[in-house]
Amino acid sequence: MVEGKIGKIHGWAAMGPGLKVEPWSYTPRPLGDHDIEIKIEYSGICGSDLHTLKEEWGPTIFPAIVGHEIVGKVISKGKAVTEHNEGDLVGVGAQVYGCLQGSCNACSHNLDPHCPKAVFTYNAKYPDGQPAQGGYAEAVRLDASFAIKIPDNIDPIHAPPLMCAGVTVFAPMLRKGVKKGDRVGIVGIGGLGHLAIQYAHALGAEVVAFSHSPNKQKQCLELGATAFIDTSNKDELDAVRGTLNYLFITSNSKSNQYNEFISWMAFEGTIVLLAIPEGKMVFSPFDFIRTEVSITGSMIGGVNVLKKTLEFAAKNNIRPIIEKYPIDKVNEALQHMDAGKARYRIVLTH
Amino acid sequence: MVEGKIGKIHGWAAMGPGLKVEPWSYTPRPLGDHDIEIKIEYSGICGSDLHTLKEEWGPTIFPAIVGHEIVGKVISKGKAVTEHNEGDLVGVGAQVYGCLQGSCNACSHNLDPHCPKAVFTYNAKYPDGQPAQGGYAEAVRLDASFAIKIPDNIDPIHAPPLMCAGVTVFAPMLRKGVKKGDRVGIVGIGGLGHLAIQYAHALGAEVVAFSHSPNKQKQCLELGATAFIDTSNKDELDAVRGTLNYLFITSNSKSNQYNEFISWMAFEGTIVLLAIPEGKMVFSPFDFIRTEVSITGSMIGGVNVLKKTLEFAAKNNIRPIIEKYPIDKVNEALQHMDAGKARYRIVLTH
Repeated sequence: MVEGKIGKIHGWAAMGPGLKVEPWSYTPRPLGDHDIEIKIEYSGICGSDLHTLKEEWGPTIFPAIVGHEIVGKVISKGKAVTEHNEGDLVGVGAQVYGCLQGSCNACSHNLDPHCPKAVFTYNAKYPDGQPAQGGYAEAVRLDASFAIKIPDNIDPIHAPPLMCAGVTVFAPMLRKGVKKGDRVGIVGIGGLGHLAIQYAHALGAEVVAFSHSPNKQKQCLELGATAFIDTSNKDELDAVRGTLNYLFITSNSKSNQYNEFISWMAFEGTIVLLAIPEGKMVFSPFDFIRTEVSITGSMIGGVNVLKKTLEFAAKNNIRPIIEKYPIDKVNEALQHMDAGKARYRIVLTH
Repeated sequence: MVEGKIGKIHGWAAMGPGLKVEPWSYTPRPLGDHDIEIKIEYSGICGSDLHTLKEEWGPTIFPAIVGHEIVGKVISKGKAVTEHNEGDLVGVGAQVYGCLQGSCNACSHNLDPHCPKAVFTYNAKYPDGQPAQGGYAEAVRLDASFAIKIPDNIDPIHAPPLMCAGVTVFAPMLRKGVKKGDRVGIVGIGGLGHLAIQYAHALGAEVVAFSHSPNKQKQCLELGATAFIDTSNKDELDAVRGTLNYLFITSNSKSNQYNEFISWMAFEGTIVLLAIPEGKMVFSPFDFIRTEVSITGSMIGGVNVLKKTLEFAAKNNIRPIIEKYPIDKVNEALQHMDAGKARYRIVLTH
C-alpha cells in the first residue's frame, strides 16, 4: 500500500453545534489502492455547511470539518488509480464514495448520491466507522473516481462553487431537459441562483430571475436573465403568471408561497426545489391540479453529471461571482454567509 | 339552420344546493351548424356531480342538471357536421366545447379542457350566456367534435364511466409514459381506482392496489392487480416502500398521508393526484427531495385522449363494474354514491 504524504491533516473543525470552527487535526484513513490524497488550495462555503454546523438537519458528528466544494492538487495516489496523476488539479463535491457499479440502481442512473454505499464528504462515516472530514483543511483523501479534473480554462479559484452549487442547479436542468426556448424562472438570487441563471441561459432558455432585492436586477441581466421580477411588485408578478415551463427554487425560506409559485407556471410546468424548505410544504391543490404542474426536488448529482457541469461551464464561460477569504478568517466568512451578505459565493483560500 | 328534434329537454335538476334533483325542463340552445343533438340512453354518476350539487367546489348555477358521462344516439345534426350521423352511438364527457385549433396552446397539446374557450358539460355557460346542462336528462346538444363514437364491442351501458373516470385515469398514464415493467400503485379502489388498475395492467405495468377495505382484495386481483395492500397493515406497507415508479391517488380524503405515499416511491417516482384533495396539501419536504419524487395532478383529458381511452378499453377488454339505477331513482342513486357504497360506478338508465 502507498503511504499518503500527510500524516496529520490540519483543518478548522467545529467542536459542537454553532458557527464556530477552530484549528484541529486528525489522522487520515489509510490511502487505499483506489484513493488519492489532495492538497487543498481552495474550498467553497455552502449553505449545507452552515446547516450542519448548526445541527439544523439532524445530529452532526463532532469534531466536524465541513466544506464540500474542494479544489486542489493530487499529491499521492493508490497503486490502482489510473484517472489522476500527482500534480493534477481536481475538484471534489459533496460525495467521496459510491459503488459506481452498473448493477446499482442508483449509480447506473447517474444518481450516485443515492447509492446505498454512498459516503458524503463530511458528517458521514465510512463503513469502517471512520468519520469523513471535509474541505476546511489542508488536505483530503478519497476514492479517485469522485475527484473530477478541473478544465484548463477555469481559474481554480472559480471551480469550488461549481462542485456543489453548480451541479445542484445543472443536474435537474439536464435531467428535465431544459432547452432552447423554454421559459425558466429562478427564485432566490444567491449562491445557487446566480449560477442557475447562467446555466439556463447557456442552455438557450429565456430566464426570469425573481428576487425581493431590486438591487440585484442589473447583475441578473448581466448574467443572462431576460427579465428580473421584483417579488414585492404585484404588477410585475401578474405579467409573468401562466408563462413559465420550469421554476427552480433556491430559497428555503419559511415564507415561500407555493401557490404563488404555481400561478407563474404554464400548463404542465415543472417546479424544482433545490433547497430544502424549512418547515412543511403547504399549498392548495386546486390550481396545481388544474394546471397539471409538477413539483419535484433534486439533490446534487452523480460524478458523470459533475463532469458535465464543469465541461459545460468551461465551454460556456459560466463562472461564479465570489468573495475570497483566507482560511484563517473562516469564522468571519461563516458569519458573513449566515447574514445573507455573500455576493454570491465565498471561496476560502488555503 | 337545422332545427333540433326536441323543443323542450326534460331532465332531473337541482333547484338549490344539496343532493336532491327533481323533474324540470329547459329550452335547448339552437342547434348550430357544428352541433349535434343526442337522445341520452345512459348516464354515469361522477363524484364531480355530487361536489357540484353540494356546492363544494364553489358556486353552482341553479337549476342544475349534472351528469358528464353521457351515452346515446345522435338524433339531429347541424349541416356542417361530418363526423357523426343520425343513429350513431356516441359518448360525451366533461367538456362540450373547445376551439380545437392548432394555434391554441391548450388544444394543440391535447389539453382541450384548458382551452380558454372551453365549455364544460354542466355548471358552465356558453359565451352567449346560456347555461350548459348535463346528462341526467333525455337529451343534450353540443359541438359534434366533443362527441366520441362508442366502439362496437363496448356494451353501451359500460361506456359512460369511461367518458370521465376512464379518461381521468388513462390520460396521465399516457402522458407520463407508463409502460411494461413499471410498478404502479393505485390508492383508493372506487370508480376511478378500479378502472386505473385495468388500464395500468393493460399497459403492462405491475399494479399494486392500496385500500383500507380488505374485502376489495379479491376483486382488485381479478381486475389485474399483482398485489393488494391493506393500508392498515404496517408490514404490508413496509414491504412496498421505495418500490413504486408511479402512484395514482384517486382518494380526496383529508386523511391522505402524503409523506406515507412518498415513502412508497422509487427514486424519481411520480405521484399523480386524480382527485382534488379536501383541504391543503401538506408534507415534509426532506424525503421528497432526497428521493427526487415528483408530485403532479391531472384533470380529465382532451378529445383525442378520450378517443384513445375508448379504443384502448375496447381492445383490452377494460370494462367498469357498475350498478344500474333507472333515471327516476336518481335521488336514491345519489345517496348510495354519497354513502361510498357504489361498487364501483353507477349508471342511470334512461
